[in-house]
Amino acid sequence: MNNSSTSRRRFLLSGAMGAAAAATGFAARAADASAAPAFDKVYDVIVVGSGFAGLAAALEASIGGAKVLLLEKMHAYGGNSAINGGAFSVAGSPLQKKYGIKDSPEQMLADMIRSGRGLSHVDLLKMVVEGSLPAYEFTLRHGVKYKDFVQHFGGHSVPRTLQTIESTGGGITRPLAESCKKHGVEMHLRAKMEEFILSPAGRVIGLKVRERYEFPNEASGVLQTYGARRGVVMATGGFSRNIWFRKQQDPQLDERLDSTNHPGATGDGLLKMLSIGGAPVQIDQIQLGPWTSPDERGFGLVSQFNTIAGFPMGIMVDVRTGRRFCNELADRKERTDAILGLMENGKPVYPVCFTDAKGVAKAQTLKNGLKYGVIKKFDKLEDLAKAYGIPVEPFVKQVDEFNAMVKQKNDTQFHRALDLAIVLDKAPFYACRVWPKVHYCMGGVGITKNAEVYKVDGSIIPGLFAAGEVTGGTHGASRLGGCAIADGLVMGRIAAQSALKLAPVSL
Amino acid sequence: MNNSSTSRRRFLLSGAMGAAAAATGFAARAADASAAPAFDKVYDVIVVGSGFAGLAAALEASIGGAKVLLLEKMHAYGGNSAINGGAFSVAGSPLQKKYGIKDSPEQMLADMIRSGRGLSHVDLLKMVVEGSLPAYEFTLRHGVKYKDFVQHFGGHSVPRTLQTIESTGGGITRPLAESCKKHGVEMHLRAKMEEFILSPAGRVIGLKVRERYEFPNEASGVLQTYGARRGVVMATGGFSRNIWFRKQQDPQLDERLDSTNHPGATGDGLLKMLSIGGAPVQIDQIQLGPWTSPDERGFGLVSQFNTIAGFPMGIMVDVRTGRRFCNELADRKERTDAILGLMENGKPVYPVCFTDAKGVAKAQTLKNGLKYGVIKKFDKLEDLAKAYGIPVEPFVKQVDEFNAMVKQKNDTQFHRALDLAIVLDKAPFYACRVWPKVHYCMGGVGITKNAEVYKVDGSIIPGLFAAGEVTGGTHGASRLGGCAIADGLVMGRIAAQSALKLAPVSL
Repeated sequence: MNNSSTSRRRFLLSGAMGAAAAATGFAARAADASAAPAFDKVYDVIVVGSGFAGLAAALEASIGGAKVLLLEKMHAYGGNSAINGGAFSVAGSPLQKKYGIKDSPEQMLADMIRSGRGLSHVDLLKMVVEGSLPAYEFTLRHGVKYKDFVQHFGGHSVPRTLQTIESTGGGITRPLAESCKKHGVEMHLRAKMEEFILSPAGRVIGLKVRERYEFPNEASGVLQTYGARRGVVMATGGFSRNIWFRKQQDPQLDERLDSTNHPGATGDGLLKMLSIGGAPVQIDQIQLGPWTSPDERGFGLVSQFNTIAGFPMGIMVDVRTGRRFCNELADRKERTDAILGLMENGKPVYPVCFTDAKGVAKAQTLKNGLKYGVIKKFDKLEDLAKAYGIPVEPFVKQVDEFNAMVKQKNDTQFHRALDLAIVLDKAPFYACRVWPKVHYCMGGVGITKNAEVYKVDGSIIPGLFAAGEVTGGTHGASRLGGCAIADGLVMGRIAAQSALKLAPVSL
Repeated sequence: MNNSSTSRRRFLLSGAMGAAAAATGFAARAADASAAPAFDKVYDVIVVGSGFAGLAAALEASIGGAKVLLLEKMHAYGGNSAINGGAFSVAGSPLQKKYGIKDSPEQMLADMIRSGRGLSHVDLLKMVVEGSLPAYEFTLRHGVKYKDFVQHFGGHSVPRTLQTIESTGGGITRPLAESCKKHGVEMHLRAKMEEFILSPAGRVIGLKVRERYEFPNEASGVLQTYGARRGVVMATGGFSRNIWFRKQQDPQLDERLDSTNHPGATGDGLLKMLSIGGAPVQIDQIQLGPWTSPDERGFGLVSQFNTIAGFPMGIMVDVRTGRRFCNELADRKERTDAILGLMENGKPVYPVCFTDAKGVAKAQTLKNGLKYGVIKKFDKLEDLAKAYGIPVEPFVKQVDEFNAMVKQKNDTQFHRALDLAIVLDKAPFYACRVWPKVHYCMGGVGITKNAEVYKVDGSIIPGLFAAGEVTGGTHGASRLGGCAIADGLVMGRIAAQSALKLAPVSL
């Protein structure tokens, strides 16, 4: 498909050279065209990253007729998406209709704006909520399967969160990756994007890539250059595992805090975009997950237990008082702030979350959680309290009070929606300790609603698109649960569509 | 002082060319040394910006023996510092001792950490508080004069804020600018920094500068290149007047919100540093001033009235209830959030702040405020209430309650420190309407405690230093009043000292 002549290619590349020179104060006359390297291979669209956004972009571009290269720096496809909980919030899904839940993009938008605390870029949010149902249908077409229920996640006004059969994001990334292959996407594992290659006008026309890269050895592998006639889509995720960078943004998120993310979530792609003038947006808005356990590493087994069972079907108490201290279904920021407020002399006092035998029916990770001792089983409430050093009487009184509130469907303590709540009275009881972990970067590079990347001066960087967690602004100060999949899939598809609309450059 | 040979200069510049090329994916072999331009003039240190930080840096470098160039893009020296309130918070000043106020850098640090809400970079804050007294003495040596009293600003635990004789930051910038000239600093007005010039190793070795620049015409003037053997100090301030960029960070800060800043506060210098890979830190932490008036533009006359009289000597009430609604001496963020909370259906309900005849004794802007009608005078509390549509009885009751609390030195409503408060009973009364304006950017480029600029990857950009509002992290989520002068002067001096310690490059 590369039908440009060698001489023309040289001309363009020497121009890119000149643009680079001008950026540091030298005129293009210094460029030496004859010495510019040719691309090792040329594509229409290059996608960097293979999570929800990257796979959706690659698939969308390929279906749209483009010759597509997808790069993944790690040993397996899926990035952090593959280990996420597989919870997908969709406005107006068939499952909501089946269970009589009324919902709309407008209602989901209102929920997300509330959670964003005034910082959300509403133009981006609108794209996400309006695209959530088409994105869900897109996943069905590519073989993703969902469980037959709708969950009510914290901060959402109605149940709208679907769950993959596998209970992980891998339930989406695996079928999409397979579909990419079927649709002819060229896919490289262990291929790390190293630098952008720009045209004279500052358009992104390719990448320098480190092939056979061995994470995290930055000197490993061999360098190749790939051209992108239509554009490059950056879908490289967040920086939760980049401790230096996240501490610059929020010094509280230091080495002592674990992260739910995979080790590759180092923000490389974001930093590369920022380094060529990409606009940083709300980079210090970093979300902690409120459902993680201090007794295991990373996302672990407890997160799903709490999301599906502990929080909606149980309660969480301060071990010093036996009392609840927040709405267990508030949005993530509200819950995280409440939990971190339990610090005593700078040290965490881990709260305990529990539910009863009825509450754990859908908790797939219960069995392994018990096996590894991060979830514990008790025949009596008194035993549970004693095991965690909770004062017994106030705790039992709290449970009684909560049960009475469930019966009256009115949480007079913290105004939690009790539609899924149950009376906690059927032994055995299942409990775990809770402490937040760094989970998601709301901030990132600024984009238009067409997924074009903004420069710091408000112009766009032609040929460069970004989608998913690497972008900033969509979720403002706090992302709602299940909205990362929506964001990644919707904006990944839009990024590909925008690249295909762009007049191609001859390489 | 330029004793390098022409051939060596060419070599270095061609190297810079090569580094620029590599940054976009091409090898240095493409560079053509013979075509690289020579610098029009070479200095030891170039300082960009002439506010507190820039003037302190230029003076410190010049006194240290360096050949210094200072660039200011506007028509006058001083930048936004010249129009600030001239309030300088110093830990352990002679004036505090004179008035029996016990204070220490540790106490000031604790106050600033509290205001920063966990986001402060404590290593930077320590430099500022420990350097505040030496910086104050530095200003005395260069002819700055202060009033004979110490103010108690919001969020500070003790009175520690000094005030220039002129009641503006110009009382500092003017003498420092004069001292710069005396000490041989070469100073250019209407000289806009356009691009950095980098060495092969990525060190900043000079600037492309637009001389005879006519703000805001970006095409005006003529380009010159200046070399910097020791380094470049960026002291270019915040971006409060860059509406596109500030909206990306916080969409609430849109066109409808005014700013206290001068028109040149567009963040150009910050954006240039970010574009060569400078690390963005907490860019969305933008402070609104809680003491401004919706009845005049910019910083205006009311700000000083409220800071010196209305808030410490009076009270602020919600016009719908006649009641106080916050601690009038809380830190800026707490007050601003409280005032913005008075929105009704998306529209502001301006609160009213007032004091009595005793309270206005030190309010220098009172006369002009009355003249331009932005401060109003009333013989009776009842007349004041009626003029602003405040329900009379609840308002008078609130004033009585407050007066009783002042007598008992105990604010049972909002726990305000009442050490400066007065019983509000001596007519006439002086009142104004209040609404916040964009005032200060806490965020900026990341720096070390030696004012070296961090790259996004955690390395530093050699030869590049930054100080003052253009830097991020020092003040976290909210800067305390009077601490911008301390920050600018202290870190400006440190930036210069760091540049002088750096081994010079031969240009």
